[in-house]
Amino acid sequence: MTTVGVIGGGQLARMMIPAAISLGIDLKVLAEAEGMAAGLAASAVGDYRNRDVVLAFAETVDVITFDHEHVPQEVLKALVDRGIPVHPGPDALLFAQDKLLMRKRLSELGLPVPEWAAVENVEQLADFLSQQGGRAVVKTARGGYDGKGVRVVTHEHDVDDWFTALAEDANGGALLVEELVDFTRELAQVVARNPSGEIVAWPVVETVQRDGVCAEVIAPAPRSAGKLADVAGDIATRVAEGLGVTGVLAVELFETTDERLLINELAMRPHNSGHWSIDGSTTSQFEQHLRAVLDLPLGATAMRDPWSVMVNIFGGPSEGALIDRFPAALEAHRSAKVHNYGKDSRPGRKMGHVTVGSDDLDDAAYEARATAAFFQD
Amino acid sequence: MTTVGVIGGGQLARMMIPAAISLGIDLKVLAEAEGMAAGLAASAVGDYRNRDVVLAFAETVDVITFDHEHVPQEVLKALVDRGIPVHPGPDALLFAQDKLLMRKRLSELGLPVPEWAAVENVEQLADFLSQQGGRAVVKTARGGYDGKGVRVVTHEHDVDDWFTALAEDANGGALLVEELVDFTRELAQVVARNPSGEIVAWPVVETVQRDGVCAEVIAPAPRSAGKLADVAGDIATRVAEGLGVTGVLAVELFETTDERLLINELAMRPHNSGHWSIDGSTTSQFEQHLRAVLDLPLGATAMRDPWSVMVNIFGGPSEGALIDRFPAALEAHRSAKVHNYGKDSRPGRKMGHVTVGSDDLDDAAYEARATAAFFQD
Repeated sequence: MTTVGVIGGGQLARMMIPAAISLGIDLKVLAEAEGMAAGLAASAVGDYRNRDVVLAFAETVDVITFDHEHVPQEVLKALVDRGIPVHPGPDALLFAQDKLLMRKRLSELGLPVPEWAAVENVEQLADFLSQQGGRAVVKTARGGYDGKGVRVVTHEHDVDDWFTALAEDANGGALLVEELVDFTRELAQVVARNPSGEIVAWPVVETVQRDGVCAEVIAPAPRSAGKLADVAGDIATRVAEGLGVTGVLAVELFETTDERLLINELAMRPHNSGHWSIDGSTTSQFEQHLRAVLDLPLGATAMRDPWSVMVNIFGGPSEGALIDRFPAALEAHRSAKVHNYGKDSRPGRKMGHVTVGSDDLDDAAYEARATAAFFQD
Repeated sequence: MTTVGVIGGGQLARMMIPAAISLGIDLKVLAEAEGMAAGLAASAVGDYRNRDVVLAFAETVDVITFDHEHVPQEVLKALVDRGIPVHPGPDALLFAQDKLLMRKRLSELGLPVPEWAAVENVEQLADFLSQQGGRAVVKTARGGYDGKGVRVVTHEHDVDDWFTALAEDANGGALLVEELVDFTRELAQVVARNPSGEIVAWPVVETVQRDGVCAEVIAPAPRSAGKLADVAGDIATRVAEGLGVTGVLAVELFETTDERLLINELAMRPHNSGHWSIDGSTTSQFEQHLRAVLDLPLGATAMRDPWSVMVNIFGGPSEGALIDRFPAALEAHRSAKVHNYGKDSRPGRKMGHVTVGSDDLDDAAYEARATAAFFQD
């Protein structure tokens, strides 16, 4: 029996479980706490920042992968030193952990990114703002996700709190400042790469963000046939190869008003923009991730329907659980695939998602949104 | 949290786990032993014939359902007496447990069955044989599956061993004897019914048996559009309603040379003839079974591809495990969906299955068979 170990017990680890069961792969999860979304497969509970905890967990598996990118480099390197296969490896994960290093490396690779700079103080930020017409986006290099650690600024003193925090940090460092890209929409290109170097891509998708968080995904992105799809696929392939990513890689992209694609963020794991693939593709991103980290041949990424729309469920019902809404929701929407992460309701929390496939985009979008609406007050 | 309890830890219980995870339903399994196919969800290990074992397990769940039909009536009735919802219920399961009672009840309902009789001795069997031109099929009323307990006879002494066993059985009883149906092929109609009475049907499928065991399934059955599909769906609906079945019901059918459909066997649980639905239908039979036993609205049963072919993997490799063949099999067949039940190899054992969907039947059949062949020596 081959055993894959997943560090982190959130919904991404949870959604790997069905794929592991189908393939007959043993999956073990190191969860942050009892009762996490991936609790069914949790074989250990502990702090992923603790070297000894992670090494002890790793002794029970054949390969280590992740539910998130937050495992510290020193812990990752201890795994590698112990001879444990880690996918994606520390050298790749570094670029998902540190946005400044990511921007620098992508620029070196000649990949299309927004104008950016590393700024260590108010003066440097003022310089960048003046070059950019007085507006920019500042991001903390580490620790941001789902819109956290990202701020649109119009004044050099708008992130003084972050500069203060950096000054107090023994490691020092800088903030990433980027041009405020004039984009028409956001896209995401999900690919998978195995250690043998095989790469497959799903169709490029359109992602709809609300409050900095992915709310909906349309697969494929409307009006993406031809050149746009080719360019997106080429960018993600170059990122995967250039950074040596193994497993699933999601490349978030801006489509600019002048029809260029610029790389926004990277995620080196299954990603919200690929959830539609569970129901909408021959091979889901979760099955593909397992295949990739085990260096198995990758599966076909054809779509099962011409259109697939995924809508996130945020927060959940104000009273009771998601499952209490099943009778009404499932009666009204017989073709909707409802995914319930088994979490307790909390405002803004990603509680689950709904995917609908159809020959018709409007139909898929309506059905998915209407179904998701049953689960939110 | 709603908890479904499954009695029996085989591959049918195993394949309910991914559906339960997606819907956020808690699934608990009472397994016969450690290390069963559904071991991941096993919350108890014990003998399903033991009333106390089953009642103790049932205290931990909200509804009881099954991986097989072998739980004794007295145990089932103890569950009902304790007020625990059981789906399918004892009164329905009885007809899946006893083929004589099944034939009698289906005949009463006016449903099409082969000519049959209950025979208690050699003389009665001789009478039936003489009416049927000297050939018939004898079946034990209880305990048969996958071709076991079924014998083609041409002489009244061909089942003397079974008559002897009956004579020694304190409960007595009779054997079922049936005409040897002159059929062109075997079909199966899978439906699901919830306690509220809602019924949905998947397309009628063709099943290919080898040595009395299902080897392949083609969905939909070739040349089944129109009347054949309607008749099959109508028969299964009448069986589900007539016997009060809740959950998934599979009706195995003979298509006769004179183009009639006759009911062969019934299974009141997800069935091998419905495994294709995991990959080939909007709602799999495993998700549907969970929805049905929880009395939730049933899901759409549309096909994801025009054709879906499922091929069983028997016995497994003579050395090593199924998973050792993944590199070669998955490289050659990128669109094949391989399901590995995680069992140890044993000659003739159902080890897993492969499903391929396609616009073209020949293509789907070739790909599914060729993939399955990698896993058998």
